[in-house]
Amino acid sequence: MAHSQPVTSPDDVVFDDAGLVTAVVQQQGTGEVLMVAWMNAEALRRTLADSESWFWSRSRQELWHKGSTSGNTQRVLEVHLDCDGDTLLVTVDSAGPACHTGERSCFHRPLVGN
Amino acid sequence: MAHSQPVTSPDDVVFDDAGLVTAVVQQQGTGEVLMVAWMNAEALRRTLADSESWFWSRSRQELWHKGSTSGNTQRVLEVHLDCDGDTLLVTVDSAGPACHTGERSCFHRPLVGN
Repeated sequence: MAHSQPVTSPDDVVFDDAGLVTAVVQQQGTGEVLMVAWMNAEALRRTLADSESWFWSRSRQELWHKGSTSGNTQRVLEVHLDCDGDTLLVTVDSAGPACHTGERSCFHRPLVGN
Repeated sequence: MAHSQPVTSPDDVVFDDAGLVTAVVQQQGTGEVLMVAWMNAEALRRTLADSESWFWSRSRQELWHKGSTSGNTQRVLEVHLDCDGDTLLVTVDSAGPACHTGERSCFHRPLVGN
């Protein structure tokens, strides 16, 4: 086609004051939202290079290869950037649970209004 | 049942230093992730009370009733809190587009590695 869509690259990501971007991780196929975590530029670079998810741990202040301890790595299939550039949607295939509690998704607590 | 799960309430939400919690908005049924925005305690209270989504606009520094201008309100069906309490998954029925660009989802830009 003569007119292709402009390519969105990591240079288009708008990192916050702490150098981070929010990343929503979604299971391919089922659409289940597994977790939300944060990436810095290096975590995003490794995610795209390795096709496995890397994050920045705000509590430990270090790069975190998801599943490096638990074995539950996430195979990254697609990454989409949102309209204002400050959030990523990471489509993965996660064989095991995403949550450290052993639940498949971190979002396992229904909130009931007071 | 004698042993029911403990109820998760808005008091369990861990707001950040700016008084905000990340909210992922997902379309019921299709599982499409529509947008990510932020709520303060009042936005969350109104969301649960009205069963329509309210956010805190960080750029405008004001409460924001999604769809109040565009008409594309989001009917809130469920809210889940994640394991560490700092992110919400809001399941909605969104009749219209969620994105200000007119796209159904804000995540319409595929990211290609450099």
